[in-house]
Amino acid sequence: MKLVRFGPKGAEKPGMIDGQGTLRDLSGVIDDVAGDVLLPAGLAKLAGLDAATLPTVPGTPRLGPCVGRIGKLVCIGLNYSDHAAEAGVAPPAEPVIFLKANSSICGPDDPILLPRGSQKTDWEVELAFVIGKGGRYIEEADWADHVAGYCVCNDVSERAYQLESTGQWTKGKSADNFAPLGPWLVTADEIADPQALDLWLDVDGVRQQAGNTGTMIFPVREIIAYVSRFMTLEPGDVISTGTPPGVGMGKKPPTYLRKGQTVTLGVDGLGAQRQAVIDWDDRPL
Amino acid sequence: MKLVRFGPKGAEKPGMIDGQGTLRDLSGVIDDVAGDVLLPAGLAKLAGLDAATLPTVPGTPRLGPCVGRIGKLVCIGLNYSDHAAEAGVAPPAEPVIFLKANSSICGPDDPILLPRGSQKTDWEVELAFVIGKGGRYIEEADWADHVAGYCVCNDVSERAYQLESTGQWTKGKSADNFAPLGPWLVTADEIADPQALDLWLDVDGVRQQAGNTGTMIFPVREIIAYVSRFMTLEPGDVISTGTPPGVGMGKKPPTYLRKGQTVTLGVDGLGAQRQAVIDWDDRPL
Repeated sequence: MKLVRFGPKGAEKPGMIDGQGTLRDLSGVIDDVAGDVLLPAGLAKLAGLDAATLPTVPGTPRLGPCVGRIGKLVCIGLNYSDHAAEAGVAPPAEPVIFLKANSSICGPDDPILLPRGSQKTDWEVELAFVIGKGGRYIEEADWADHVAGYCVCNDVSERAYQLESTGQWTKGKSADNFAPLGPWLVTADEIADPQALDLWLDVDGVRQQAGNTGTMIFPVREIIAYVSRFMTLEPGDVISTGTPPGVGMGKKPPTYLRKGQTVTLGVDGLGAQRQAVIDWDDRPL
Repeated sequence: MKLVRFGPKGAEKPGMIDGQGTLRDLSGVIDDVAGDVLLPAGLAKLAGLDAATLPTVPGTPRLGPCVGRIGKLVCIGLNYSDHAAEAGVAPPAEPVIFLKANSSICGPDDPILLPRGSQKTDWEVELAFVIGKGGRYIEEADWADHVAGYCVCNDVSERAYQLESTGQWTKGKSADNFAPLGPWLVTADEIADPQALDLWLDVDGVRQQAGNTGTMIFPVREIIAYVSRFMTLEPGDVISTGTPPGVGMGKKPPTYLRKGQTVTLGVDGLGAQRQAVIDWDDRPL
């Protein structure tokens, strides 16, 4: 299934993309694509629906982040060996874990908002996965029991804030609209192997990132076990798995986003995102 | 006002401590101590209540975290010059910002859960403040307009996970029950000066930390303006402002929490917390 959330920011309704690509309204069935709906029983109930009986949604509404009420957005850093190289650091011996603020989460086609005075806002196409059944100290062998599905994430990053200020990466990872999620939450049954997916990202139509999840240092099955050693994973938590080579910071010379540009990105089977780059002060209210 | 949340984990009700120290039930008035209730208009409505008309709550129920539906828990690192010295680092030129996972938040008297195999779980008494009116790029002069109130936070930290693993501090800051908040959310009108509060923490009755918020490097008014440069602050976000000297890591030799110990801590005017130290596997379910 391809689950979505559509409508104005903060008032999204749940929906489903049917086999013909038509957006169907799920708000008569579930309150949101969130929480317990993502447990195996919740997804099984949705899978049992006849999509043709659901109301179609007219027009092309805005899509919100494909999961609602996200408890935490966990990210894995430097998880592709080639990206670690372009960042000028050794591949990590264990996964690097950081958090993005929930307030950074937005829809897949919402604009990237350049912070005031930002000179180094960068892109990162990533495979993200969504927790269904939660847990702590999850065994690697059980990983698939805990994944509700997958989606595209752009881990937008302000490099000066991330790397040139004091302390942790948080400052460069948490600005508004720095975490577009979607367009769809694709349930795990539709992804035969999360370690065999192409990822790509273009700026103004020029390919910047091209990779495959097969070159991750730590695959999804290891990430879920590892992260759960340090915190309890809950239904609706999202983990983004790191970015392949080709970020702006790694270009020679480094190249960052400018107002007026358009970023498009996608992952095999998970759809594509499209973001206009605008100043924070020009954001739609 | 002293606002609280009482009852079983995940099913807390809102309450208020009246002038006689009696717990009164607010669930007939508000759904939770959370979100828009924390805006100035929401707090003014509560302040206008005659507490004597609210039902008293029998017994001594568990207290939950004093704020519900927390969007993000932002922490400031190394914000007391003496603590930076004991940690062996120079005082930061700008505030160090990190996030704790929302799943680490618990009630003020819930047990500290030692992660499996943990050898270096440490304590950190802190003054935390709660955002009422949200915003981005908040002017320092306007800081008081955005603070709903204050509470005690124990920023429990596993130092090996935080400092000896790869990457960011996240791994050592986000375990279950690593962020006791409360007992009360004390509204800002009751705290004349957040930079003149004594803080203390004992382990098994022996004083370990004693400090005063007057020695913060970056006071609350600067923190709120600074953090809001990097992310939008929303009603119900919590910012914990760093710890004074006396953490276990800074002792000679370093001293960490062991199963069976009891941690007590408090901040002037904000009440006290009491936590038994137990293994994660012995947690009450």
